[in-house]
Amino acid sequence: MSPDYHKSSIESGIANVQNVSAAYAMWAVSAPRHFGSEATHRAKRAFMDVIACMVPGALDEAALTLRAVSSQWGEGPSTVVGQQRGQSAPLAALANGTAAHALDFDDNFDPAKAHITAVMAPALLSLGEARVKSGADILEAYIVGLQIATRVGQGLNPFHRNRGWHATSTVGAIGAAVACGRLVGLNHIKMSHCLNMSTSYAGGFMSQFGSMTKPLHAGKAAEAGVVCALLAEAGMTAGHETLDGPTGMAQLMVGPDLEELRTKAEFKREHGQTMRFETDSIGEPLAILAHGLKVKRYPTCASTHRALDGVLQLIAAHGIKANDVTHVDVYAPVSHFNNLMYRDPKDGLQAKFSMEFCVAVALQNNSVGLNDFTPDAVASSSYRSLMPHVHRHPVAKSESEFATRVEITLKSGAQHSVSVDAPKGRADNPLSDMELWDKLRQCCRGILDSTATERLAEALGQIDGPQPIATLMALLR
Amino acid sequence: MSPDYHKSSIESGIANVQNVSAAYAMWAVSAPRHFGSEATHRAKRAFMDVIACMVPGALDEAALTLRAVSSQWGEGPSTVVGQQRGQSAPLAALANGTAAHALDFDDNFDPAKAHITAVMAPALLSLGEARVKSGADILEAYIVGLQIATRVGQGLNPFHRNRGWHATSTVGAIGAAVACGRLVGLNHIKMSHCLNMSTSYAGGFMSQFGSMTKPLHAGKAAEAGVVCALLAEAGMTAGHETLDGPTGMAQLMVGPDLEELRTKAEFKREHGQTMRFETDSIGEPLAILAHGLKVKRYPTCASTHRALDGVLQLIAAHGIKANDVTHVDVYAPVSHFNNLMYRDPKDGLQAKFSMEFCVAVALQNNSVGLNDFTPDAVASSSYRSLMPHVHRHPVAKSESEFATRVEITLKSGAQHSVSVDAPKGRADNPLSDMELWDKLRQCCRGILDSTATERLAEALGQIDGPQPIATLMALLR
Repeated sequence: MSPDYHKSSIESGIANVQNVSAAYAMWAVSAPRHFGSEATHRAKRAFMDVIACMVPGALDEAALTLRAVSSQWGEGPSTVVGQQRGQSAPLAALANGTAAHALDFDDNFDPAKAHITAVMAPALLSLGEARVKSGADILEAYIVGLQIATRVGQGLNPFHRNRGWHATSTVGAIGAAVACGRLVGLNHIKMSHCLNMSTSYAGGFMSQFGSMTKPLHAGKAAEAGVVCALLAEAGMTAGHETLDGPTGMAQLMVGPDLEELRTKAEFKREHGQTMRFETDSIGEPLAILAHGLKVKRYPTCASTHRALDGVLQLIAAHGIKANDVTHVDVYAPVSHFNNLMYRDPKDGLQAKFSMEFCVAVALQNNSVGLNDFTPDAVASSSYRSLMPHVHRHPVAKSESEFATRVEITLKSGAQHSVSVDAPKGRADNPLSDMELWDKLRQCCRGILDSTATERLAEALGQIDGPQPIATLMALLR
Repeated sequence: MSPDYHKSSIESGIANVQNVSAAYAMWAVSAPRHFGSEATHRAKRAFMDVIACMVPGALDEAALTLRAVSSQWGEGPSTVVGQQRGQSAPLAALANGTAAHALDFDDNFDPAKAHITAVMAPALLSLGEARVKSGADILEAYIVGLQIATRVGQGLNPFHRNRGWHATSTVGAIGAAVACGRLVGLNHIKMSHCLNMSTSYAGGFMSQFGSMTKPLHAGKAAEAGVVCALLAEAGMTAGHETLDGPTGMAQLMVGPDLEELRTKAEFKREHGQTMRFETDSIGEPLAILAHGLKVKRYPTCASTHRALDGVLQLIAAHGIKANDVTHVDVYAPVSHFNNLMYRDPKDGLQAKFSMEFCVAVALQNNSVGLNDFTPDAVASSSYRSLMPHVHRHPVAKSESEFATRVEITLKSGAQHSVSVDAPKGRADNPLSDMELWDKLRQCCRGILDSTATERLAEALGQIDGPQPIATLMALLR
């Protein structure tokens, strides 16, 4: 058997291939090294946020269970958050990706319909540490990978996700692979193999939601990104029509009715989702600027966020005390209430999906944080006594048609109300840098001491600099 | 965050779940320890065949490329074929699965439409070595996993594969996970999580065919089997409707037109494929007895096999010498010739897809083996001079409607002909044990010396015994 048999038939051929994945690969290797200060700043914020999520996430049961097993699979140079011993870059990406998504407190990216940073950042950090890359290198690779994840996500969505694919795991693997390929400097042929190979690692259904396999999806997609980049670098080949070919991702992961769906009159073109893999202007506009990321202010179901913003705004504006409240009336899209199925939550996970519990926490504490979802907190009488005051008013309109309205009635008879359209953290209403730092400190509380937290904050503040990423990662062991 | 939040909402609930995956899990943990001597003998033959394929497969470029990278990811107790140093069970399964499928010389299993042993055996061997299991334990787990792979494959096919999913990678991962779960002795709740988790590792399109990612699919599915069993054992949870739920495998990996396809009048019920996950009689009939495995006699495209059997039969019956032949007329289904697109192959891979080349080899050597596809062999004038004598006669009928017919005309004017319906190696026309041993020796030639080959054969002869599998695996380092 000739050791060159694959090369001769595949690799030589692919150099001349002009198709979607070749075009994406070409852009990914030839995009500029600098995307401007605003794009870099946004990438830096994404890393600040996801690293904040990894710290408590690494202590979540899903992350602990994974690590109890995977830590036995060998040693290596990359940091596994919450573990002294380093591991290979793929295994560190697996563990850290699972940790990043375990609390569902990480960001979300609409064009790809994916928790994209929980996949891409762990992959880049682990690989960057193994290859002695700087934070600046990593942020640049992240922006490149995010751009291709956008094009792939726009090419498959909204129907890919709407049908039940977990895009965090499918599109996420591809974004991570391209980002990692960029980080190690693949040429355009190897980048094309890397991208095409990553479609074989795209998997995971939404029927895993509510189980530990959901955060595992982020971890395994992060691992896939590292694996595909390293295999492509070493010469592993892949098909070249795995996105748009007759047995490519669009046909198989949207459906055989792809063409119909594309032309459907009622088609919703949210976030540039056209169900076509655009190649005319791959790098423009830059997705991180045009779309941005949705950052979570609260560690709860996103359907609670507008109501919680409203409660906190009213508290701030009117100095409301929990003891003075008789009614909290929440008018919100029916879809939000459908997501919030627990009126009497029995544990922390259910409590995150309970409007009643979350609003009670906000009233009591003037904040909603990770520590409010411990078993003790969920059973606490101070929250329980407030929950009966919270009243649901489902409105038969979509999220974009109806802003959540909160009305608070006090014992004095006074009434205060506010409507919230864009929750704090959405791209058009971003958290301030200060609020992001607060989230970091909240996430580290009880896990790192204040000195360690401040050291981590300092290193994160310099993540866009030239120092090796290992300096920062060492603080997470 | 409560470390029990997932358990409380998922694991306690799943104990009472009565659905497809729960039923499959229950069968997989409660099936008998002994399936009878014929089933065990067939499983043993499958392992003999796939280990034979791994030996030269480990030197194939795809396997070498993978190993050049993955061997850096840590050490462990499990044998990586062709490598001194052991690795963790998942990484050994990845490497050995890729080697097993690299030459496309491994078996095929119709109900699942998958190269099932190339996935399941490497997973079981690697995990069995790490957990000090015997060959007998491994064969039993293989029969169990094969049974569930059959039920899942019958539930998705033929449309899953026909649409372009690579079932080796999708159904294979599930079969391997169940087999590994059985090997480590999961209870039915953990087995259900293991099975459901493995759907997240089901991926890979046929658009990867012809590239190194195709054998990688077998490796990554084998790795997934080990990973899912170990994670489920440690307490990782998964959804419980990932096969048949609204966002389960049937909906997402067959298509939204699933119901239509199921009821289609022209539906072909090959190999029990009903597009329904049967739960009435999960363990009966035993798939390894009722369906069997298709074993490859030649390391070439399956579409050449009936013609090659015919040529070798005529040579044997009439003592034909290559020099005496003026014409070889091959009448075969048009679909076979369509697969054999290379009339003038340039390299070993193309030569395996060339009827002209393969028939010339058979005429010249009275055999067709791995060594006939080296660059030198492909260029050899002894084959080249015979190729013009081979004539194609495509017949517009399907494989089941038309038996391949070979007519050989000699310089003397004599004509001999034969029709071949079932190629040697198909379940209804199996290789004899002696022919399987010949295949093993052919596969080891030039790689292991004759002493090492005989030691391997001896260990394989005892693979159904109580000795730790490590004894056999040590011979493959």
